[in-house]
Amino acid sequence: MTQIANAPAIILVAPQMGENIGAAARVMANFGLFDLRLVAPRDGWPNPAAETMSAGAFEAGVAVRVFETVETAIADCGLVLATTARSRGMEKPVVDMAGARARILATPGRAAILFGGERAGLPNEAVTLADAILSYPVHTGFASLNLAQAVAVAAHGWAEGRSLPPAFDAPVDEPATREDLLGMMEHFEAELDRAGFFLPEVKRGVMVQNLRNAFTRAGWTAQEVRTFRGAIKALAVGRGKARVARD
Amino acid sequence: MTQIANAPAIILVAPQMGENIGAAARVMANFGLFDLRLVAPRDGWPNPAAETMSAGAFEAGVAVRVFETVETAIADCGLVLATTARSRGMEKPVVDMAGARARILATPGRAAILFGGERAGLPNEAVTLADAILSYPVHTGFASLNLAQAVAVAAHGWAEGRSLPPAFDAPVDEPATREDLLGMMEHFEAELDRAGFFLPEVKRGVMVQNLRNAFTRAGWTAQEVRTFRGAIKALAVGRGKARVARD
Repeated sequence: MTQIANAPAIILVAPQMGENIGAAARVMANFGLFDLRLVAPRDGWPNPAAETMSAGAFEAGVAVRVFETVETAIADCGLVLATTARSRGMEKPVVDMAGARARILATPGRAAILFGGERAGLPNEAVTLADAILSYPVHTGFASLNLAQAVAVAAHGWAEGRSLPPAFDAPVDEPATREDLLGMMEHFEAELDRAGFFLPEVKRGVMVQNLRNAFTRAGWTAQEVRTFRGAIKALAVGRGKARVARD
Repeated sequence: MTQIANAPAIILVAPQMGENIGAAARVMANFGLFDLRLVAPRDGWPNPAAETMSAGAFEAGVAVRVFETVETAIADCGLVLATTARSRGMEKPVVDMAGARARILATPGRAAILFGGERAGLPNEAVTLADAILSYPVHTGFASLNLAQAVAVAAHGWAEGRSLPPAFDAPVDEPATREDLLGMMEHFEAELDRAGFFLPEVKRGVMVQNLRNAFTRAGWTAQEVRTFRGAIKALAVGRGKARVARD
């Protein structure tokens, strides 16, 4: 997999649980991030629990480097963002994820996003080294995200606005023409007329309008129109048969 | 905690692991979503593993209801979005998270977002019941998100836009690397130590923090760092000369 230009490094500072490191790696690969840096991971590295939770992300290209200090982890970076929900009493620009993406795209150097460990988040010394604070619009009183969830938000946020999976590029089926759609609606209305549905006659106009609005809003494909016309025919024939049977 | 108007319900269809249900609940509460619905959870409900991973989200207000079918789970909804990375050969509008937020905000009724279980995602029958497909810009070849991570992206996406606007500044010169900046700060601090600036010693920490915050905030260019280090050197040399001259 190719690294997209400007893709930021994800730096986990003193992470504790291997499960979270693995889950972070997985969601990084989901959104095209492949530079994972660990500062003093509690349980060392490699970590079997991380491997399990990664769902193959390391084999898929997520590269892990371990550092002893935040300073060495960010040495090659031109932009450093620190994630925290608390201001720390520091004079520092605060951006949301859209703002972070804009800053990352605007920086000519390597960008990195710092995430603190499970227990206490980033230490003040690490936030001090960042150009800006990245914060999420969390709910007051329940502001603490799981570490891997915080990485998920950043990974998606980084990728947001890019194209959706190529599976969605090709139209599934040829769209119905307006002639197809009108033919279908007229067919439906003709059968409803024969069934005595549009009575009293004075209400016909508004009833047709309601049905045509609903049908038109649905954006039918040619195949769906053919299927529905078959269904109308079956109902009409069935109704006729039923009437014959009753007679 | 108060439910924000239009906040969508999150519906997990045949989820398997309690850990993922709990992690989903936690990140829902993080972003102000409190309506969690489970369709046929494999291990039943309540689930101790979910409780552990929720970090108190259920006590914080996330309400869980269990349903036997998708049809009953979405019965009260006016808008239903189905998350999937595969087109399923269905003619269905496809939106990204920003598009989903716009649709949710525009709908007068209750909205819901469907997520499939860990093994196979949503069944086609569930996708068919949705107004639109919600998809994320995932990386080709590594498109499968962890269930709780997928919920995290949606929960943040729903809340996005509710934080401070970013401040931008475009660099005019090559940015300094973090190594350049750290070298500059350490150089400055070393000269201040020699000058007896950090006295009393007990205040050194907060003084260094203040200086490093100011320096780091400034977005130095490589040239500015070179200039400033020249200035430090000149001051240090000058001070030495002055002392010599006084002696």
